Amino acid sequence: QKPRKATPQTGEDTLNGHLPPGWQSYMSPQGRRYYVNTFTNETTWERPSSVPGTPKSPVKPANSPSVLTVNGYHTSGTPVHQFDSGHMSLRKASGDPQERKTLAETKGVLSETSLMINCVTFPHPDVMPEQQLLKPSEWSYCDYFWADKKDSQGNNTVSGFEILLQKQLKGKQMQKEMAEFVRERIKIEEEYAKNLSKLSQNSLAAQEEGTLGEAWAQLKKSLADEAEVHLKFSSKLQSEVEKPLLNFRENFKKDMKKCDHHIADLRKHLASRYAAVEKARKALTERQKDLEMKTQQLEVKLSNKTEEEIKKARRKSTQAGDDLMRCVDLYNQAQSKWFEEMVTTTLELERLEVERVEMIRQHLCQYTQLRHETDMFNQSVIELVDQLLRKVDPAKDRELWVKEHKTGDIRPVDMEI
Amino acid sequence: QKPRKATPQTGEDTLNGHLPPGWQSYMSPQGRRYYVNTFTNETTWERPSSVPGTPKSPVKPANSPSVLTVNGYHTSGTPVHQFDSGHMSLRKASGDPQERKTLAETKGVLSETSLMINCVTFPHPDVMPEQQLLKPSEWSYCDYFWADKKDSQGNNTVSGFEILLQKQLKGKQMQKEMAEFVRERIKIEEEYAKNLSKLSQNSLAAQEEGTLGEAWAQLKKSLADEAEVHLKFSSKLQSEVEKPLLNFRENFKKDMKKCDHHIADLRKHLASRYAAVEKARKALTERQKDLEMKTQQLEVKLSNKTEEEIKKARRKSTQAGDDLMRCVDLYNQAQSKWFEEMVTTTLELERLEVERVEMIRQHLCQYTQLRHETDMFNQSVIELVDQLLRKVDPAKDRELWVKEHKTGDIRPVDMEI
Repeated sequence: QKPRKATPQTGEDTLNGHLPPGWQSYMSPQGRRYYVNTFTNETTWERPSSVPGTPKSPVKPANSPSVLTVNGYHTSGTPVHQFDSGHMSLRKASGDPQERKTLAETKGVLSETSLMINCVTFPHPDVMPEQQLLKPSEWSYCDYFWADKKDSQGNNTVSGFEILLQKQLKGKQMQKEMAEFVRERIKIEEEYAKNLSKLSQNSLAAQEEGTLGEAWAQLKKSLADEAEVHLKFSSKLQSEVEKPLLNFRENFKKDMKKCDHHIADLRKHLASRYAAVEKARKALTERQKDLEMKTQQLEVKLSNKTEEEIKKARRKSTQAGDDLMRCVDLYNQAQSKWFEEMVTTTLELERLEVERVEMIRQHLCQYTQLRHETDMFNQSVIELVDQLLRKVDPAKDRELWVKEHKTGDIRPVDMEI
Repeated sequence: QKPRKATPQTGEDTLNGHLPPGWQSYMSPQGRRYYVNTFTNETTWERPSSVPGTPKSPVKPANSPSVLTVNGYHTSGTPVHQFDSGHMSLRKASGDPQERKTLAETKGVLSETSLMINCVTFPHPDVMPEQQLLKPSEWSYCDYFWADKKDSQGNNTVSGFEILLQKQLKGKQMQKEMAEFVRERIKIEEEYAKNLSKLSQNSLAAQEEGTLGEAWAQLKKSLADEAEVHLKFSSKLQSEVEKPLLNFRENFKKDMKKCDHHIADLRKHLASRYAAVEKARKALTERQKDLEMKTQQLEVKLSNKTEEEIKKARRKSTQAGDDLMRCVDLYNQAQSKWFEEMVTTTLELERLEVERVEMIRQHLCQYTQLRHETDMFNQSVIELVDQLLRKVDPAKDRELWVKEHKTGDIRPVDMEI
């Protein structure tokens, strides 16, 4: 079972047309095209070649966590090396790296362009950039669960990912309950078969004779045959429907818990990175205040000493600016890591759900197939009885009985004197 | 149900060909042709005319005991009048009425031409006249149950008619047991239906959603539909098979008892008539001895007195001869009456048995018909489930679910300074 092929996005039909099986091309938030393997969820910037064996970069072993590049970041197992490239792309995104911003400017930019919700940075509604869905026209999990949600009571927030996990666990439960339902049906069939074969053994009207007797005997036997049919049905229900439904994904709950923790940890990490950013921002503010004050002092009375202090304060302010810059970089890395895992994991959950639905559909079809066969076999059972009923012949039966029981065919005659 | 038309006897095809419907012509033991109406068992010497309304003689009301003429006797409701005609025909049968037989002759004739078994006179094996079956090629009851039989223990004798009655009562019992068997089947179907509809109400996997949820709901509903099918089957089994089998011929045993007593009484009457014959025969012997003795006395010494006594003895001997003659006539009448009732009653029993077999065959066919319908209906029940299973679509289900549960499709972006 693989998920049904994604309908290509408008404008890239031709491109998609030549991708190897399973690969889809999507647009990153920055409008850069990247590629997702819908089987392995492997993702890459580089267009996968249809020629077998052509290495794709980044080259990753199948079992390593899948790699995704988003938001201009390219993150993989080795953060430090990745940091720079990430840093570089961040620079590209936010214009000339050498330019220094004042506190006011910084604040302004932040409030105008983005919105902070539960330590996640979203684009600001007013100045929201055009975001194309990762999988348009597919209602893909990876596109609709970015925000958190207040739970039913409205006390705690539930992450979009948790909602997906609950869906998965509910699906597992449904599958288990269907197996139970089939089990109950099996019991009913076994009981029915038991009663039929018991009645078939019954000796009622066993002494009926001749062609009628034969038809009756076959009718009684037909109940044993019916019982056989229903027993076969119940045993096939067990092996071909109940067991598969029951045994499908035995460790599913554990696996989901692992996913849950993994994503939750990434969110916690993101939160701590955000705290660091805030702290660095405060520090910068302090340093800039100090620098301003010292500059005013200089205007009042000129002296070498103050000149020195201003230089020192400017140095510290610049350092604080660099600190904030580094903290923001680390925050953005953490958010990208979480983003990457969200996409790959939700794509995986999506695949699992498709698999579950297909699996259940298959086994319910198997159920109707077995029910159908049961009716067919039952009909053939009755055929035999009908054949003998057609042969029933009272005259023939009388002949058989008279031949066996006749007392004498010589008729009396008158007595004579 | 009337008995299947008797195959005409060789040599009278043409004759039979022109008889009114239901009439068959047969040969009496004396080789005289007589006619039986296979519907009413009415019997007559006179060839029934096909012209409607042509009176047949003897003319009898439909409800009066059917009239049969056999063995040269024509017996009906009025014995005295019949006695003469019977007497006459007897005479024809036994030659010149005026001729007197001596005791020796009488004995001789009796032992040579006939055989007495349980007071019934059968033709003697050595001098047996050619007897054609009343219904050749039909194995008719009326042809094969004339003799009595020692029962299994060999103590008492059982009449051929009783054996026929036992067959009838056994048939009635078989019919009753078949009804019981069907009753048991009905119970099994009701139990099965109860369990199916109960399971159908069960809430297992009721929360499954989307197209899969619809298919699952239909699958559960289909059990209720199956239950309906089996309930319908069981109720039709009751009204169309069990009840008819059970209620067919409610007073049958009583009717058979009546038959039994009627025929038994005729046999008793025959026995008493036979006793009278034996008594009269002894009396004749006495008279003939006395006459002989007196004749010898005459040779010894002649006297008027003896002359007188001889005349008197001869008169008495003649009278005793007439007595014996009358007793034999009465015996033959009784035997003929019994014979007549044997033929008509066994023909009726034959008809009843054919009727019973046909009735049972019909209702067993009804059973298989109902079983067949049950399988057909069950298949249509499953069709509905199959239709919905074909419509199951994971992508559609995901769309429905995502639309309902999505938290937000705006993706995070990098934090800027």
